[in-house]
Amino acid sequence: MTLQLGTDETLLKALRRDLPAAALSTGPLAAPYATDRSGSHPYGLPLAVVHAANADHVRTTLRHAHALRVPVVPRGAGTGLSGGANAGVGTVVLDLSRMNRILDLDPHDQIAVVEPGVITAELDRAAGEFGLRYAPDPASAAISTVGGNIATNAGGLRCAKYGVTRDAVLGLDAVLADGTPVRTGRRTVKGVTGYDLTALLTGSEGTLAVITAATVRLRPLPEATATVAAYFDTFAEGAEAMAELTAARLEPSMAELLDGPVLGAVDEAQGTDLRSRGGALLLLQCDGRSAAAEAELAVRLLRDRAASVETTSEPVEAERLLSARRLALPSLERLGRVLIEDIAVPRSQLATAVREITVIAGRHDVRIFTFAHAADGNLHPILVLDPASQDIPDAAWQAAGDIFTAALRLGGTLTGEHGVGTLKRRWLADELGPEQHALQQRIKAAFDPHHILNPGKAL
Amino acid sequence: MTLQLGTDETLLKALRRDLPAAALSTGPLAAPYATDRSGSHPYGLPLAVVHAANADHVRTTLRHAHALRVPVVPRGAGTGLSGGANAGVGTVVLDLSRMNRILDLDPHDQIAVVEPGVITAELDRAAGEFGLRYAPDPASAAISTVGGNIATNAGGLRCAKYGVTRDAVLGLDAVLADGTPVRTGRRTVKGVTGYDLTALLTGSEGTLAVITAATVRLRPLPEATATVAAYFDTFAEGAEAMAELTAARLEPSMAELLDGPVLGAVDEAQGTDLRSRGGALLLLQCDGRSAAAEAELAVRLLRDRAASVETTSEPVEAERLLSARRLALPSLERLGRVLIEDIAVPRSQLATAVREITVIAGRHDVRIFTFAHAADGNLHPILVLDPASQDIPDAAWQAAGDIFTAALRLGGTLTGEHGVGTLKRRWLADELGPEQHALQQRIKAAFDPHHILNPGKAL
Ligand SMILES: Cc1cc2nc3c(=O)[nH]c(=O)nc-3n(C[C@H](O)[C@H](O)[C@H](O)COP(=O)(O)OP(=O)(O)OC[C@H]3O[C@@H](n4cnc5c(N)ncnc54)[C@H](O)[C@@H]3O)c2cc1C
Ligand SMILES: Cc1cc2nc3c(=O)[nH]c(=O)nc-3n(C[C@H](O)[C@H](O)[C@H](O)COP(=O)(O)OP(=O)(O)OC[C@H]3O[C@@H](n4cnc5c(N)ncnc54)[C@H](O)[C@@H]3O)c2cc1C
Repeated sequence: MTLQLGTDETLLKALRRDLPAAALSTGPLAAPYATDRSGSHPYGLPLAVVHAANADHVRTTLRHAHALRVPVVPRGAGTGLSGGANAGVGTVVLDLSRMNRILDLDPHDQIAVVEPGVITAELDRAAGEFGLRYAPDPASAAISTVGGNIATNAGGLRCAKYGVTRDAVLGLDAVLADGTPVRTGRRTVKGVTGYDLTALLTGSEGTLAVITAATVRLRPLPEATATVAAYFDTFAEGAEAMAELTAARLEPSMAELLDGPVLGAVDEAQGTDLRSRGGALLLLQCDGRSAAAEAELAVRLLRDRAASVETTSEPVEAERLLSARRLALPSLERLGRVLIEDIAVPRSQLATAVREITVIAGRHDVRIFTFAHAADGNLHPILVLDPASQDIPDAAWQAAGDIFTAALRLGGTLTGEHGVGTLKRRWLADELGPEQHALQQRIKAAFDPHHILNPGKAL
Repeated sequence: MTLQLGTDETLLKALRRDLPAAALSTGPLAAPYATDRSGSHPYGLPLAVVHAANADHVRTTLRHAHALRVPVVPRGAGTGLSGGANAGVGTVVLDLSRMNRILDLDPHDQIAVVEPGVITAELDRAAGEFGLRYAPDPASAAISTVGGNIATNAGGLRCAKYGVTRDAVLGLDAVLADGTPVRTGRRTVKGVTGYDLTALLTGSEGTLAVITAATVRLRPLPEATATVAAYFDTFAEGAEAMAELTAARLEPSMAELLDGPVLGAVDEAQGTDLRSRGGALLLLQCDGRSAAAEAELAVRLLRDRAASVETTSEPVEAERLLSARRLALPSLERLGRVLIEDIAVPRSQLATAVREITVIAGRHDVRIFTFAHAADGNLHPILVLDPASQDIPDAAWQAAGDIFTAALRLGGTLTGEHGVGTLKRRWLADELGPEQHALQQRIKAAFDPHHILNPGKAL
C-alpha cells in the first residue's frame, strides 16, 4: 500500500530534499512572515518559508511549487503598506532577505549589481564611499530591500528631482513562475533591444517574476545641499506656494508638505510647538552646485506667502528642521492604529485634494492626518483608528474609498508609490478600465499561466 | 453567381466604405510609404495607406485588418533607421502624421497631451512659450514625430542629463490590434497602479499597439547654457577625458565625441579645417543655474589632456562650435550611401569599442566613421558604402555583425536608441537569450494574437 501524500506534504518533502535544512521554516516559525506593515491580515499562516540564499534556491522552490500549483509569495523585508507580501494558508513565502550581497559596485560606470535582499540604505552608503549615491530613498530605506523597492517601484523624498525606483534600474535577473531564469535590460545607460521587461517587472509586486539580482544606476553625490522650512496658515496656502515655486521653475530635490493635524500630533508626541507656528509646514531641499542660490530664490518667493521662513546650509540645523517630517509617522502611531494611504494627483490639484480629504474625514467621522511629497502631487492621508479594533472598521474603508474616488476624479491615481497589493484591488478596475484590466491579465498569464506567483495581489 | 473577392479587395472595400476618401492612398500613391530612412527595402509596395485623422480611423482600420488578418504597419514620419516602418507587399500602412494637434499644454502641471503625429521640435517650441521644454531631442527632432519617438524610445543629445523618451512619457492612448482602445498611465508624475504598460509600449516599435495620444512631461528651460569644445590627438584620449569628467561627477546636458575621420569628412564637405586641430572632438554643454561653473570645471579638467579647449556662454559662438556635430551626417552622406549603426556600451568601454570598430573596418575593408553620445556610451558607427550598389554588400553586413558582437562582448547592447526594426533581428536572440526571447513572444501574443501589428519587426 502506498501512502498518498497531499499537495502540501509533497511540496514540503521536495523542498526538504532539495534545499538545506536552514533554508526552510514551517509551523510557528513561519508566522512572522504572514503579514507586511499594512495592518491587514490574510487568512491563516503560510505553509512554509523558504529563506533563499541564492538564485538556485529560488529556482528550486518555484519549480516544485509550480509543478504542484502551490502559490508563492516573494518577500523582501515585509515593510510594504499594501498587503503585497501578505501570505495566508496554503502559500509558500519566498524570503529574499538573506540574498543581501552587493555583487559589484563600479564607480567608473556608476552602476551597482546587487542581490535583492540588500537594504536600500546600505547600497546608498556603499555608493557614498565613491562619492556616489543610490537616488531612490523611500522613508523606509533603512529597513526595506532593494528588491522590494523594485517590486513596488518605490518612491521617496528625493524622487522630486531624481525620479522613482524605475528610473534607477537598468537590468534585472529574475526567475519566472516555472523556475526559468531570465536576464532583462543591460549594464548600459541606454538600450532599446526588445520590449522593456525591466520596466514591466518594476512595480509588478511579485506577480510576474522573482527578482534575484538588479543592476542599478548610481549618481554623483551633490556638492551642496540647502534646506528651507516655511510655515503657512493653511495647507492650501502651502500648496499654492509650492505651485509658485514650480512655476518659477525651481526643481527642489525634496518638497514635503505637512498639514496642521500632523504638526499637532508631532507636538503631542515630542513636546515641540510646531502647530503654534502655522497650519502647514513646507520643507524643501535644493541640491547641487547652485543649491544655495536656489534656496535663496525659494525663500524670496515664499516670504510674502508664508507665516515664517528659515533656511540653512548647515547639516545639524537642517536635520533639526527636517525632524518634523521624520517624526510624523512615529508620532501618529502613538495616537492609534495607522492606515497609511497613498494617492497622487496632478500637481495643481494638491490643495483641492486636501480640501476633499478634510470633507471626507468629517463625513465618515474618521481622523485623517495628511502629508505630501508636494512636488509630485503624491499625498499620504493617514487614517488613525482605534487601536483596540483588530479589523479595519467600515467607516475607514468608506473614507478610503472616497479618497480614491476623489483622486481619480481629480485626474489622479489610487497609488502613487505603495502599490495595489490586496488593499486597493477593489478599486483597480475603476482606474484601469475594463479593456486595460483584461490586457494586464493576459500579460500576467504570459508570465505565470497557472497564477502561482503572488495570486490575489496587484491585479 | 456571387463574385468572391480576395482578402485585399475585401479590405479595401471596407476601408473605402468606412473612411473618408482623402484618408486612403493606393497604388503608386502608396509608394513613398514603403520605406524609412534605414536604406533597406521591403519586397514590393504596400496595398494601401490610411492617413488617419483621428483615433476612430485608427480603430476602423485595425478592426477590418484584424478581421481579415492583414498586416498593419504604423508610421510616423518615416525617419526611422532600422526598417521599423518599412511596409512591403500585402500590408496596410497606418500613417499617423496627420494627427498632429497639441491637445493640451498645461504649464502648471508641466505636462502636454499630444496626438502622435506632432513633430517633436514643435512640441518643444510650444512648451518654450511657457518657459518649458520637451526634453527628448533626437537629432531628427525637426522631422520626426512624438509618436515615432515613443514607439522607438528615441534618445538624443540632451538625454545625457534628462533621460530618454521613456522618461518623459506619463501616459498613452493606444489601440490594440483588434481595434480595442486602452488608456495607460496617468497625468500625475508618480503612480504605480497596475503593470507599467506605458513603459512597455514605449520602444515597442509599433508591434504591440498603435499610439493615438500621449501625455508627456515638460521640464523647465534651463536658466543658462555653457558650451565647451575640446580637441584631442586620438579618440581614446577624448574618451578617457570624458571618463574623467564623469569621475569628477560632472553631469553635462550634452557630450558628443566625434572621431578623426568624421572631422575629415566635415572638412571635405564644408571647407573647414577641423581635422588639423586633432583626431577627435569632444563637445560638451552644461546647463542650469551653475552652467558656467560646471563648464569652467570641465575646462580645468580637460586642459592637461586636450590639444585645445574653448568655452563660451554666447549662443552664436556655441552654435559655431556645435556645427561640426550638426554637419557630420550631411557631410558623410556626400561621401556615399550611409548605414547608421547604433550600439551602446558601458561608459568605461567607449575607447575600447572604438578601437574594435577600427579593427573591424580594416578587416572587412569598409569605411566606418564614428561619433558617440559619450556620456551614455552610445556609439554611432557610420558605414559609408558605394552609392552605386542598391543592396547592402556582404562586407557591410559582416562588419555590422562584428560590431554588434563586440558590443555584446563589452557588456553592451545591439541598439542604444534606433531600435531593432528589421535590420537587427538576426542578432536579437544573442542579446535576449532564448528564455527572454520566448517570453517576449508570449507578451506580443497577449497584445496581438494574430500577429497583424508590424509583423517581422523588433522581435
Ligand atoms: C515607515 C515606512 C515608511 C515608508 N515609506 C515609503 C516611501 O517613502 N515610499 C515608498 O514607496 N514606500 C514606502 N514604504 C513602503 C515600503 O517600505 C515599500 O513598499 C518597500 O518598497 C517595500 O520593500 P520590502 O523589501 O519591505 O518589500 P516587501 O514588503 O517584502 O514586499 C513588497 C512587495 O514586493 C514583492 N517583492 C519583494 N521582494 C521581491 C523580489 N525580490 N522579487 C519579486 N517581488 C518581490 C512582494 O511580493 C510584495 O508584493 C514605507 C513603509 C514604512 C513601514
Ligand atoms: C538625420 C536623422 C537623425 C536621427 N537622430 C536620431 C537620434 O539622435 N536619436 C534617435 O533615437 N533616433 C534618431 N533618428 C532615428 C529616427 O528619427 C527615430 O527613430 C524617430 O523616433 C522615428 O520617428 P518617426 O516619426 O520618423 O517614426 P517612423 O520612422 O515612422 O517609425 C518608427 C517606428 O515606430 C513605429 N511607429 C511610429 N509611429 C507610431 C505610432 N503612433 N504608434 C505605434 N507605432 C508607431 C513604426 O511602426 C516604426 O516601427 C535619426 C534619424 C535621422 C534621419
